Amino acid sequence: MEKYSSSPIPLVEDAPNKKQTVCIFGTGDFGRSLGQKMMQCGYSIVFGSRNPQDSSLIPPGATVLPHAEAAEMSDIIILAIHRTCYNFLETLKEMLSGKVLVDVSNNLKINQYPQTNAEYLAQLIPESKVVKAFNSVSAWALQSGALDASRQVFVCGNDSKSKEKVMDIVRSLGLTPLDKGSLLATKEIEDYPLQLFPMWKYPIYLSLAISAFFFFYSVIRDIVYNYVVKNKDFSFFIAISIPNRVCPIVALILLALVYLPGIFAAILQLYRGTKYRRFPDWLDKWMLCRKQLGLVALAFAFLHVLYTLVIPIRYYVRWRLNSYVLQQAFNNKTDPFNTVQGWISDSYVALGILGFFLFVLLGITSLPSVSNSVNWREFRFVQSYLGYLTLVLCTAHTLVYGGKRFLHVRSYPWGLPAAYILSLIIPCIVLVIKFVLILPCIDRPLTAIRQGWERKPKHVCEPYNNLSRSSV
Amino acid sequence: MEKYSSSPIPLVEDAPNKKQTVCIFGTGDFGRSLGQKMMQCGYSIVFGSRNPQDSSLIPPGATVLPHAEAAEMSDIIILAIHRTCYNFLETLKEMLSGKVLVDVSNNLKINQYPQTNAEYLAQLIPESKVVKAFNSVSAWALQSGALDASRQVFVCGNDSKSKEKVMDIVRSLGLTPLDKGSLLATKEIEDYPLQLFPMWKYPIYLSLAISAFFFFYSVIRDIVYNYVVKNKDFSFFIAISIPNRVCPIVALILLALVYLPGIFAAILQLYRGTKYRRFPDWLDKWMLCRKQLGLVALAFAFLHVLYTLVIPIRYYVRWRLNSYVLQQAFNNKTDPFNTVQGWISDSYVALGILGFFLFVLLGITSLPSVSNSVNWREFRFVQSYLGYLTLVLCTAHTLVYGGKRFLHVRSYPWGLPAAYILSLIIPCIVLVIKFVLILPCIDRPLTAIRQGWERKPKHVCEPYNNLSRSSV
Amino acid sequence: MEKYSSSPIPLVEDAPNKKQTVCIFGTGDFGRSLGQKMMQCGYSIVFGSRNPQDSSLIPPGATVLPHAEAAEMSDIIILAIHRTCYNFLETLKEMLSGKVLVDVSNNLKINQYPQTNAEYLAQLIPESKVVKAFNSVSAWALQSGALDASRQVFVCGNDSKSKEKVMDIVRSLGLTPLDKGSLLATKEIEDYPLQLFPMWKYPIYLSLAISAFFFFYSVIRDIVYNYVVKNKDFSFFIAISIPNRVCPIVALILLALVYLPGIFAAILQLYRGTKYRRFPDWLDKWMLCRKQLGLVALAFAFLHVLYTLVIPIRYYVRWRLNSYVLQQAFNNKTDPFNTVQGWISDSYVALGILGFFLFVLLGITSLPSVSNSVNWREFRFVQSYLGYLTLVLCTAHTLVYGGKRFLHVRSYPWGLPAAYILSLIIPCIVLVIKFVLILPCIDRPLTAIRQGWERKPKHVCEPYNNLSRSSV
Repeated sequence: MEKYSSSPIPLVEDAPNKKQTVCIFGTGDFGRSLGQKMMQCGYSIVFGSRNPQDSSLIPPGATVLPHAEAAEMSDIIILAIHRTCYNFLETLKEMLSGKVLVDVSNNLKINQYPQTNAEYLAQLIPESKVVKAFNSVSAWALQSGALDASRQVFVCGNDSKSKEKVMDIVRSLGLTPLDKGSLLATKEIEDYPLQLFPMWKYPIYLSLAISAFFFFYSVIRDIVYNYVVKNKDFSFFIAISIPNRVCPIVALILLALVYLPGIFAAILQLYRGTKYRRFPDWLDKWMLCRKQLGLVALAFAFLHVLYTLVIPIRYYVRWRLNSYVLQQAFNNKTDPFNTVQGWISDSYVALGILGFFLFVLLGITSLPSVSNSVNWREFRFVQSYLGYLTLVLCTAHTLVYGGKRFLHVRSYPWGLPAAYILSLIIPCIVLVIKFVLILPCIDRPLTAIRQGWERKPKHVCEPYNNLSRSSV
Repeated sequence: MEKYSSSPIPLVEDAPNKKQTVCIFGTGDFGRSLGQKMMQCGYSIVFGSRNPQDSSLIPPGATVLPHAEAAEMSDIIILAIHRTCYNFLETLKEMLSGKVLVDVSNNLKINQYPQTNAEYLAQLIPESKVVKAFNSVSAWALQSGALDASRQVFVCGNDSKSKEKVMDIVRSLGLTPLDKGSLLATKEIEDYPLQLFPMWKYPIYLSLAISAFFFFYSVIRDIVYNYVVKNKDFSFFIAISIPNRVCPIVALILLALVYLPGIFAAILQLYRGTKYRRFPDWLDKWMLCRKQLGLVALAFAFLHVLYTLVIPIRYYVRWRLNSYVLQQAFNNKTDPFNTVQGWISDSYVALGILGFFLFVLLGITSLPSVSNSVNWREFRFVQSYLGYLTLVLCTAHTLVYGGKRFLHVRSYPWGLPAAYILSLIIPCIVLVIKFVLILPCIDRPLTAIRQGWERKPKHVCEPYNNLSRSSV
Repeated sequence: MEKYSSSPIPLVEDAPNKKQTVCIFGTGDFGRSLGQKMMQCGYSIVFGSRNPQDSSLIPPGATVLPHAEAAEMSDIIILAIHRTCYNFLETLKEMLSGKVLVDVSNNLKINQYPQTNAEYLAQLIPESKVVKAFNSVSAWALQSGALDASRQVFVCGNDSKSKEKVMDIVRSLGLTPLDKGSLLATKEIEDYPLQLFPMWKYPIYLSLAISAFFFFYSVIRDIVYNYVVKNKDFSFFIAISIPNRVCPIVALILLALVYLPGIFAAILQLYRGTKYRRFPDWLDKWMLCRKQLGLVALAFAFLHVLYTLVIPIRYYVRWRLNSYVLQQAFNNKTDPFNTVQGWISDSYVALGILGFFLFVLLGITSLPSVSNSVNWREFRFVQSYLGYLTLVLCTAHTLVYGGKRFLHVRSYPWGLPAAYILSLIIPCIVLVIKFVLILPCIDRPLTAIRQGWERKPKHVCEPYNNLSRSSV
């Protein structure tokens, strides 16, 4: 087991003098799991329980005592009980005075109580040193050792000595403590394990809504139309052809939506003449989920690439190409090579490849460990310049793709324009306005506003406007 | 050189008063390399040596003195000597008392000694403050500045002031200290540099064994059979056709093996009626390398995608398609389009694309920096729900792929079933049992067991069973 | 807004007693942005200004006072003013004594002053405790909350208590403090935000130069030659065909250039007989940007893969394949299958796939979070063994690709060899020399040199040459 175990400290049965005694209040699932794990890592555990006789589930080797007696055994008391039971701790007030109380509790939903659990505890027993920790760790993970997920344990507390003691326990369990400062951070820490991708919700819902719209639009335009008007069954288009039409459209629209709020912000700042007024709430929210929007767009672009690359191995495509060749063979003629079509076909594919390449690059720089290793100037270079270049390439890819079929009459069944034409609206608007914004006559006042400059500067020397980090 | 150097602190020749003197015992390769690097970063180095006269290899600028005299020059003594030589330090006992002894040593194999080197040192010179550090850094990396690999230096020690001093040295060399707590962590730290992907060993061996089996199975079934029975030479199938048959099979089996131990665990828990008894050792080990199994599976799936996408540019495939068209041309007939085959072909490709897409998503969330930024609930959502969805899609992909050829007689040369049929066994078993396990009548007791609940709860309030983090 | 905000601490208007007062000198853009953000996070802000009456731009809720009065209000003073204005602080010398001065300043270019700003400040007001922080944070990011980029804030200072206070402020703003040690680190910290991918400059310029050469070489050889000699217009080759020739060439050459400096270093060490002499400057620089060279090579390889996979959906390729089939149809004959060509076609594609697969694996292990989680031995295994295997596979891929056309006369228009032949020169040299270097008779002395061994070892025990981490 040893070489597979990710727990750094093995059982130190042979070093009894090293054992530190820690008290755990509560013999519920989490208390028992934590106690068992700590005992494996060389701690001596005393459980505090209301019914110390009924210790059937207690891990072997641990002691179970009434709360008051258990509390006397250790300077560190881990409270593995619900917030609703905290009030009984008041009866032990003087006994807990000066001790480290480790609050591991979570609530069932965000903002359940006005005060965080740890703050409530600190107010109940003001003489104790409350440290918040372990709340993002799962009992299951502790028991099974399946700590593939984050090994980070957020720790916060107002007393730095107590915090250090708890961080040592965290480390000895093979986990990584992350000091989040004072108890002010408990709000964040207690909300953390309850979240389920909060920043991703709107981008994903939005992408699903756009996908659904364009999916049904294409079904009507390509399958229903052909079935009703031409009596042909193209229902199998649902598997690949239509998804491969929907994916690039969603990717392009979402990519444009990444850059649209920046455009709005610039216009608003130009109109207001200052950057010190807050943006409307919807714009703030939008700007905060741009990264997620971009990554969802990348996912759709990736699907588009896969759907496109399998085209030649599809039975339908092979059959169509074969029919085309056989038709020429039976008619005893060869279609001549059309250089213009060669140009269009190759350049629209090449634009798509370059756009996707830059898009992947943007995605890689969004990885936390990569974006942490670039500075602000580098991040802006990648996300702003390369990002706009990606948008330009992808829009051009769609335009050249359309170039072939824009004017065909059969492109408008039932008067419906092709879906890709609709998808070009937002990207083109974004690119046109951005082009206007970077004209020198508009860029100059905007840059000035973003650097916080005033038209009649009074302070010659004092204001600190660092050029290298002021603009968007 | 400056702007390429990754060392943060340049030579501070002009600030002699800032130079701190550090003593290094031992003039071997590591001692000299570390000394040279520290001198470049502004430290003054005194080497302690048994033969101080023979200082030919000492970096210029450093002093070499006998051990006792060298030890007097500094509060921090870095021991760049082998553990087997530590006993001579006992002769310097009173001189080393109160000083920081930095143990940088490694052993040649894991578990070479019952005690770690640093613990042995701390026991030899109990009055000193032993700090373990630098043991994962390579002499070559220090010299060449080629620190592309990890810049992390694990530091541990019982005295936090001494640890802080050593961490300052680590930082000033451009490395990142990582506080691992007390000397209890030395076991982990000393084992660390000796490992060579310990968690990856079994998954990789297993994947190679499965690959080898299916490779030879396919060679017999496709090449040998055709050569012996039909006298056709398909030996070139070894390059692409057979690998493209083996890769998806291995990927699918490994992916199913990721979820099989969870199934076993659930059955065991249901049978035992408790989660507080330890799993058998093999199940524990299996559960701990699920992430690695999944990533190896992803690697094979990635190869399968590449092998599949190059199909249309292979000479053999082009020749076969051409022959098929020419045959129709010579017979003066066109095979009509088969809608059912269009559906099968497109849907099996589409299922594969979606499965691969989710698989890549799972792989990305396995990156350390990504998995560190999601909480337990989000990690479970991705790895459990999306993981099972991936398995369902990939199994369906294989089933629909097989749909076309399942009943052909020529699909069973020498009575051997196609390899993909064999590959479906484990995934189908996993999915069927999982389906049974999520039936409400079975899921309910299982969830209760996993939350540590008892049938007759006695403690109404105390036990802390947090719903948001109890189940698998 | 709450659930979208990434700031951990909400407005704590209801906890006025928790508010700590912090003083900010300077009402420029950065000062105001930081002040506003800190007020949102529960701090009380006093601005120190030369013109306290002119407080039009001050965020509402903050106080503005003359410098001396403002400084009295708080123990922590954030200096959001330019270095050039620091000298006025001397007039407040006794008032600032003992206080924490936070230097947030950046310069406009690297090495603008001999002394860093923070060191200059510490020298001006020696009785104060100078802490460097916040200089890598952008005013825009603070205001908009758009902290997608790095949330890391480098903090350094000589007084650890003061540093801890500043790190608490950093944490409470939702940012991650990174302790960089003493003020010696200010050089690195102040240079950091001014960099724009310094390590990437040469690899990218080099790759662009090689790309441009081979692009024009191929344009002449394929487009101009065909136009002049055969009067055929292949200008559309510029979009895909020629990039797909340039990309693999650049990727292969850059990959070989990753391993060339190691070869040079080995030869130099063998020639000198020691590893303790410094490499020439150009070799040092080269070795330090090997990772970047490799990643640029991977980018070109990725483009090559995309360009290759779209081949079958290009109009030109489809037309050419159709012509070929039609020609056979009109001549009423079928070209027989050529097993040798089947072997060559499949094996060169298979080699390319395996090479690219290993290349992607190398790229993934270069991600900071992945390379931080492997030890030196594992890193060397991947980057050295797998790296050379990648180079061997990619070189073999090119050789087998060429095998088909090496001896055709039409392969040398105007006597120009195909570009891929030129691209093979460096990789073959690297592989041949590396093969010589791993011959036992040469490897043995080289390994000895790299472990710092001498021919006549005098110290039997002392030198610490750890085998597990000495060689390249």
